[in-house]
Amino acid sequence: MAKELKQLDELFHDTLKDIYFAEKKLTTALPKMAKAAQSPDLKAAFSKHAKETQGQVKRLEQVFSIIGKKPQGKKCEAIMGLAKEGDEVAKDYKGSPALDAGLLAAAQAVEHYEISRYGTLCAWAEELGLSDAKRLLGQTLDEEEKTDVALSELAESTINQQAEAA
Amino acid sequence: MAKELKQLDELFHDTLKDIYFAEKKLTTALPKMAKAAQSPDLKAAFSKHAKETQGQVKRLEQVFSIIGKKPQGKKCEAIMGLAKEGDEVAKDYKGSPALDAGLLAAAQAVEHYEISRYGTLCAWAEELGLSDAKRLLGQTLDEEEKTDVALSELAESTINQQAEAA
Repeated sequence: MAKELKQLDELFHDTLKDIYFAEKKLTTALPKMAKAAQSPDLKAAFSKHAKETQGQVKRLEQVFSIIGKKPQGKKCEAIMGLAKEGDEVAKDYKGSPALDAGLLAAAQAVEHYEISRYGTLCAWAEELGLSDAKRLLGQTLDEEEKTDVALSELAESTINQQAEAA
Repeated sequence: MAKELKQLDELFHDTLKDIYFAEKKLTTALPKMAKAAQSPDLKAAFSKHAKETQGQVKRLEQVFSIIGKKPQGKKCEAIMGLAKEGDEVAKDYKGSPALDAGLLAAAQAVEHYEISRYGTLCAWAEELGLSDAKRLLGQTLDEEEKTDVALSELAESTINQQAEAA
């Protein structure tokens, strides 16, 4: 039984390294996106989430500690691709009224990646009986979902209109 | 005004090319994942969604037609990264009881990317007054959300347990 249990343990650990890499990448990518954004509201939303992300990195470090591992990232190809798409929008739409709509959409794609990852990690933590880890991962999942909703509201209330009306 | 309107048009068109590339990639990636999966239920879920994806490609072609453009993909870095993660799981966990849990999680990450993209495209279609496009994109968004829920249910009912108990 021990060997099989270890298999899901390993998958949990690998996925933890993946999202740890992703969150660390975001601690630098989000301030860049805040700088690139035109709307003060969008800048503020990105900056707020950049700060939140630092707390999420700390939570992941606690989860590593719970499973007796050192915090360690593993190159996350998905976040590299998602970040590249954000960079492309920032370059291709610089000066355009649609820039903010593009940046916001890129950020939502990242949020959804994270929502999927944290949802999975919560389910696996439960399966593995790691209740403290599940609680920590659930707190971050909640923050990511709230960020996604806040970005949707911002898009619908102002950013998408500004993309046409500037 | 025309110029500014065109800017959101362009962003809509660029994002359409991105998701068109992604869906086409998935029409080949999903059958591969169905083949790699161990559980008959997961194989069936992947095969069902592979078929659905073909219909989603057709819907995107209708949307291209609505905006008077030829269907054309543009390399989507995010889906390349997401697919690479799925390939890594298939390779690293081959023969392991945790393989299916890893494949399912990789598929959910892809679903969330698509949910984010279609959500954005729906909002932009509305902003641009493209009601027929919005309806088509909304149909696909609905399918992606249902697929994600079905995968979560499958994970929680059997796949995650099998990852430990094989």
